[in-house]
Amino acid sequence: MRDRVIVTAALTGAGDTVGKSEHVPVTPAQIASDAVAAANAGAAVVHIHVRNIETGQGSRDVSLYREVVRRIRESGVDVVVNLTAGMGGDLFLDQDDPLKPVDGTDLVNATDRLPHVEELLPDICTQDCGSLNFGEGSQLYVSTPDMLRTGMKRIQELGVKPELEIFDTGQLWLATKLIEEGLIDAPPLFQLCMGIPYGAPANPELLQTMVNMLPEDAQWASFAIGRNQLPWVAQSALLGGHVRVGLEDNLYLAKGVKATNAQLVERAVSIVEGLGGTVATPDEARAQLNLTGADRA
Amino acid sequence: MRDRVIVTAALTGAGDTVGKSEHVPVTPAQIASDAVAAANAGAAVVHIHVRNIETGQGSRDVSLYREVVRRIRESGVDVVVNLTAGMGGDLFLDQDDPLKPVDGTDLVNATDRLPHVEELLPDICTQDCGSLNFGEGSQLYVSTPDMLRTGMKRIQELGVKPELEIFDTGQLWLATKLIEEGLIDAPPLFQLCMGIPYGAPANPELLQTMVNMLPEDAQWASFAIGRNQLPWVAQSALLGGHVRVGLEDNLYLAKGVKATNAQLVERAVSIVEGLGGTVATPDEARAQLNLTGADRA
Amino acid sequence: MRDRVIVTAALTGAGDTVGKSEHVPVTPAQIASDAVAAANAGAAVVHIHVRNIETGQGSRDVSLYREVVRRIRESGVDVVVNLTAGMGGDLFLDQDDPLKPVDGTDLVNATDRLPHVEELLPDICTQDCGSLNFGEGSQLYVSTPDMLRTGMKRIQELGVKPELEIFDTGQLWLATKLIEEGLIDAPPLFQLCMGIPYGAPANPELLQTMVNMLPEDAQWASFAIGRNQLPWVAQSALLGGHVRVGLEDNLYLAKGVKATNAQLVERAVSIVEGLGGTVATPDEARAQLNLTGADRA
Amino acid sequence: MRDRVIVTAALTGAGDTVGKSEHVPVTPAQIASDAVAAANAGAAVVHIHVRNIETGQGSRDVSLYREVVRRIRESGVDVVVNLTAGMGGDLFLDQDDPLKPVDGTDLVNATDRLPHVEELLPDICTQDCGSLNFGEGSQLYVSTPDMLRTGMKRIQELGVKPELEIFDTGQLWLATKLIEEGLIDAPPLFQLCMGIPYGAPANPELLQTMVNMLPEDAQWASFAIGRNQLPWVAQSALLGGHVRVGLEDNLYLAKGVKATNAQLVERAVSIVEGLGGTVATPDEARAQLNLTGADRA
Ligand SMILES: [Zn+2]
Ligand SMILES: [Zn+2]
Ligand SMILES: [Zn+2]
Ligand SMILES: [Zn+2]
Repeated sequence: MRDRVIVTAALTGAGDTVGKSEHVPVTPAQIASDAVAAANAGAAVVHIHVRNIETGQGSRDVSLYREVVRRIRESGVDVVVNLTAGMGGDLFLDQDDPLKPVDGTDLVNATDRLPHVEELLPDICTQDCGSLNFGEGSQLYVSTPDMLRTGMKRIQELGVKPELEIFDTGQLWLATKLIEEGLIDAPPLFQLCMGIPYGAPANPELLQTMVNMLPEDAQWASFAIGRNQLPWVAQSALLGGHVRVGLEDNLYLAKGVKATNAQLVERAVSIVEGLGGTVATPDEARAQLNLTGADRA
Repeated sequence: MRDRVIVTAALTGAGDTVGKSEHVPVTPAQIASDAVAAANAGAAVVHIHVRNIETGQGSRDVSLYREVVRRIRESGVDVVVNLTAGMGGDLFLDQDDPLKPVDGTDLVNATDRLPHVEELLPDICTQDCGSLNFGEGSQLYVSTPDMLRTGMKRIQELGVKPELEIFDTGQLWLATKLIEEGLIDAPPLFQLCMGIPYGAPANPELLQTMVNMLPEDAQWASFAIGRNQLPWVAQSALLGGHVRVGLEDNLYLAKGVKATNAQLVERAVSIVEGLGGTVATPDEARAQLNLTGADRA
Repeated sequence: MRDRVIVTAALTGAGDTVGKSEHVPVTPAQIASDAVAAANAGAAVVHIHVRNIETGQGSRDVSLYREVVRRIRESGVDVVVNLTAGMGGDLFLDQDDPLKPVDGTDLVNATDRLPHVEELLPDICTQDCGSLNFGEGSQLYVSTPDMLRTGMKRIQELGVKPELEIFDTGQLWLATKLIEEGLIDAPPLFQLCMGIPYGAPANPELLQTMVNMLPEDAQWASFAIGRNQLPWVAQSALLGGHVRVGLEDNLYLAKGVKATNAQLVERAVSIVEGLGGTVATPDEARAQLNLTGADRA
Repeated sequence: MRDRVIVTAALTGAGDTVGKSEHVPVTPAQIASDAVAAANAGAAVVHIHVRNIETGQGSRDVSLYREVVRRIRESGVDVVVNLTAGMGGDLFLDQDDPLKPVDGTDLVNATDRLPHVEELLPDICTQDCGSLNFGEGSQLYVSTPDMLRTGMKRIQELGVKPELEIFDTGQLWLATKLIEEGLIDAPPLFQLCMGIPYGAPANPELLQTMVNMLPEDAQWASFAIGRNQLPWVAQSALLGGHVRVGLEDNLYLAKGVKATNAQLVERAVSIVEGLGGTVATPDEARAQLNLTGADRA
C-alpha cells in the first residue's frame, strides 16, 4: 500500500441518477455542499460535474461550474478541485440508421469540452482516453486520438493536471503514447475506471495487469461502480493505488441503503484505515501529484 | 498446448496495404488462389475479405464474395471458409466538427453487414464485439450492443458460427453477455485481436488475463499484427489457443522481407510444430468448433 | 467475494512469541478461553497448537490437545475445531556440518505427527504440503511426498478434513497430485500461507496466480503474517477466498498496539463486512467444507 | 523479446539418465566434446556437471571439472563456462525414521560445494537458492539462507558471477534478499527452473508472475524439463528472457526421438529465430551479464 492514499469523491456525475436517489446533488449549492462534506469526511479531491437545475441532466454550462467552485472556495474547506472535462463526447445512434445521431447526443470537439477549464483553472481536469460503447443500446462515448492530442496540449499549456480516465487496456496504451509524445507532464495521473459496461470489467486480476502496464512514474487510482465500489477501494489500495468513491458511481452504502457522498467517503476512509493505511490530506495529495495550479481555482 | 492447433489464414483484410506489398490479393481470383495456397500450406481456415478490383479498397460487394467462395470450392481444396462480417462499421469524424462523418465512413446497420453471409452461408463469419478508436486520427469502428444482438440473432438463425473478434477486455465482457443471453451457440469461438491501436496491446500477460476471463467451454485463437504476428503464434499456442497469420495483419516474413500468405502459414505451422504441437486438419477444426454448416458455402 | 466468508482464528502457533506478547495463550485453559472469545467474535473455525506450560514452546503432547478440546466443548460455544498436524517437521542444521541436526530439531515421521488427531478426531487437521527453509538460519521444515501420502491416507481413513497448508507453488502442485491420487476427499481445502520467509511472499499478483492454479472445486483461504495479516484478509476475500487471523501469525493490531485473538477476529469481521461480505457461521462453514466429523471432537 | 537471447546448454546434469539415453555425456572428454558441439550449434554458455566415469553418477571431483574445462579451452571454441555449484545438497531420508539420512545423501556445507569454483574460476557458477523436496519419495535438496550467505560471499570474492537457480517463488524472495545484503554483484543473473517436482510448475502465468517479481536490473533465463523444454524456450524468450536446453533437463527431441545436446541447441536457436529473435554470441553474453572473469577458466 502507498504511504498516503488519496480519496477522491466523485460527487454527482452526469448519469441518469437524479430520480434514483434523493442524495444526488443537482444545484451548484448542493454540489458545493457535498464537496465540503466529502472533504470534511476525508476526501482530498472532489471530482465535479454540474447538472442542469431544471432537468437534472449533466451540463457543460460554465456558469454552473463557476458557482460550484466559488462556493467551495468560499467555504474555506481545503480540497483539491477536479473538474470533469469529459462532457461533450456522447453519441447516440439509431441502430437501424447509424449515421443518424439521435436524442441524447452531445458530441463536440476537444476545445469545446474545455471552456470551464480555461476559465476556472482547476487543479485537475479529467480526460477520457478513448472511444467505446456505453451501456446496452447504441450509445458511444467519443474521444479520438486527434481530439485527445488537441485537448491534452491545451490542458498542458494551462498548467492543469489531466487525470487520464482509462476505460480499457487500449486506452491505457493510447495514454502512454500521448505521454511519450510529451503532451502530459510528469507524473502522469491515471484513473482506472472498472466495471462500466462495456469497458474493462471489475476483475482484480485485470486491474493488476493494467497496473503492470502503467509507466513507472505513474500516480494512479482505480474505482469500480455499483456494488463493487466499496470492495474496490480495498482492491485499489492493496495494489498500491489511490481510491475513488461517490454518488457518480454508486448510490448505495449496502443493499437497499442509500448513501450520501459523505457517507461513502467515510466508508472509504474506514476501509483504507482498516487495511492499516492512511488517507492523504489535500496538501499530501498536491505533493504526490505535483500539482502546480493549486491556488487558482 | 492444444492437441490440434487450428491455423487461420487472414488473406487480405481491408487495410490500406495494396500499395505496400505486391503479394496482397485483390481480385477474387487472387484471393481464392491465396486461399488454396494457404490451405495447402496447412491452414484449416481461411478468413476472407474482398476488395474493389479497381481501387483495391475493402468492399461489401456480394458478387465478389460469391466469386471467391465459388473459386475456392471449385479448386477442390478442403478448407473451412470464414467470411468477415465486420465491414460496414467505419466512422471517420472531422475532429473539429465531430458530428460530420467524413471520407472513408462506411457505417451501416447490423443487417446490412450480412447479405453475403445470408447468401453464401459460410462455416464461420466474424463479428467485432464493440466500438473503439482505430489508428491515430479520428476513426472509429462502430459495433454497438444493440447492433450485435441483431446481428448475432440472424447469424444464429442461419446456422453460421460467429467468430467473436475481441479488441479489448470490455468487448470480451459484452460477448460473454451475449452468450448468456442465448444468442451464440456452444462452443463460442473467440478471436483475441491484439496490438491493433487502440485496442488491447500485444502483451503476453494481458493475453493470459483475457484467456482467464473466457467462458469455460470457449474455443479461442489470438493474433497480433505487424512484427508481432509470428511470435504471437507461439504465444497463443503456448497458452492453449489457436492461431492466425496472413497478409491482413502483417506483410513481412522478416525485416524487409515481404511475405506471401502461404509463406506466413508455413511459418505458423513450423512454429507450432517446433513447440511440439500439431496443426489441425479442416475436419479436425470442424470437429473442435462444432461447425454444422460445413457443406454449404 | 464468496457468499459466506469463513474466518479462522489461529490462536497461538508454535513460534517464539510467548515473550513478545502477553496475549499469546499458553496453557490449555488460556487457549480454550481464546477459542471461545474468537468464536464469539465471529470466527467459525479455531486453528489450534498447544504449548509446553513450563517453557511456552510448541508441543505435541496429546494430553494438552485433549484438555483444550474438552474445555472448548464444555464451554458450549459452537466452533469448528482445526488441530495442527504440522508439528514434528523441524530440522535445524549446523551449517558447517549439515548432516548434524542441532537444537530445536523435532523431526518425526508422518504417523508420529498424528496421535492427537487419531484420538480427538477434530473436524479439520492441517498438513504442510512440502519442505522448505524457514527463517534466516539453517532451519528446514520437512514434509516429503512419501510422508504426505502416509499422513493423508490415515487422515482420510479417520474422516478428518485435511487443510492443505501451501507455502509455495510447488507445494500446491504436490497437493494437487495427492488429490489426483485419491488421497483427499472433495472438496479439498487449501490454506495459502503467504509472506513467511522463505515461502511465497505476500504479493497479491502471486496470490491470484496461485488461486488460478487451484482445482476447480477447491475451498481455499489465504493468510499473510505480521503487518500484512489484516490487509491480506481483504485481499483473500476480494479474490474469493476465506480468511485467517490470529496471534499465530501476527501480534499487533496496529504499529505498537498489541492484539488479542478476539480483537484480530473482530477486525477481520469488520474488514469482510466493510467490503460488503458476510462471515460464515460454524454451520455455514461445515456445509461449505462438507465436514462430516463435526460432532466428534 | 530481448535483442540478443543467450542460449545455455545444460550438457549432462547429475540425474539418473545415463542408462536412459546413450547421448548423455559421462567422461570429461564426452562432456567437453558436447560443449564444443553445443557452442558450434549456437550456445553462448555451457552449464557443466561432471560424472563419475565408472558409475555415471554425478560427482564433485575437481579433477573431472579440471579436465572438462581444459579440453573445452584447448578446443579453441569460444563459449562461456558455467560450472554447477549445486552438488552437495542432497539429503535422502528414511520416511519412517527421518533423522536417518539414507543412501544417495550427499550433503556438505557451502564451502565444500565450491573447491572446483575456487580452482577453476569459471565465468559463472550456479547457486540453488533454497531447500525443497525433489521427486516423489523423501529426497530433499538443502540450501539454507546461512549456507547461501557463506557461498555467495565467497563467490563474490572470487569474481565469479553466480547464476541464481530459483525453484519457487520463496527462493526468488530469498535471492532478492541476498542481493539487497550486497552479496551479489549487479546485474544479478536468475535462472527460473520450472516443472521440476516439486518446485514451481511449468505454468506460463506463473513464469510471468515470477518475472514481475525480479529486481529491475535482473538478467534472467528460464527453462522447463522433459517435454516442456522446447516450448519453454519460446515462452521464456517471449517474456524477455534467455533460454536453456540440454540433456540435463530433457532427453528427447520429440516423442520417442532421443536428442543430442547439439540437436537441442539447434532447435532452441531455430525456435528463437522463428520468433524473429537473434541468439547472442559468447561475447554478447559476456557484455549483457557483465562477466569479468571471462578469460580465466
Ligand atoms: Zn466524472
Ligand atoms: Zn478480417
Ligand atoms: Zn498452525
Ligand atoms: Zn545443473
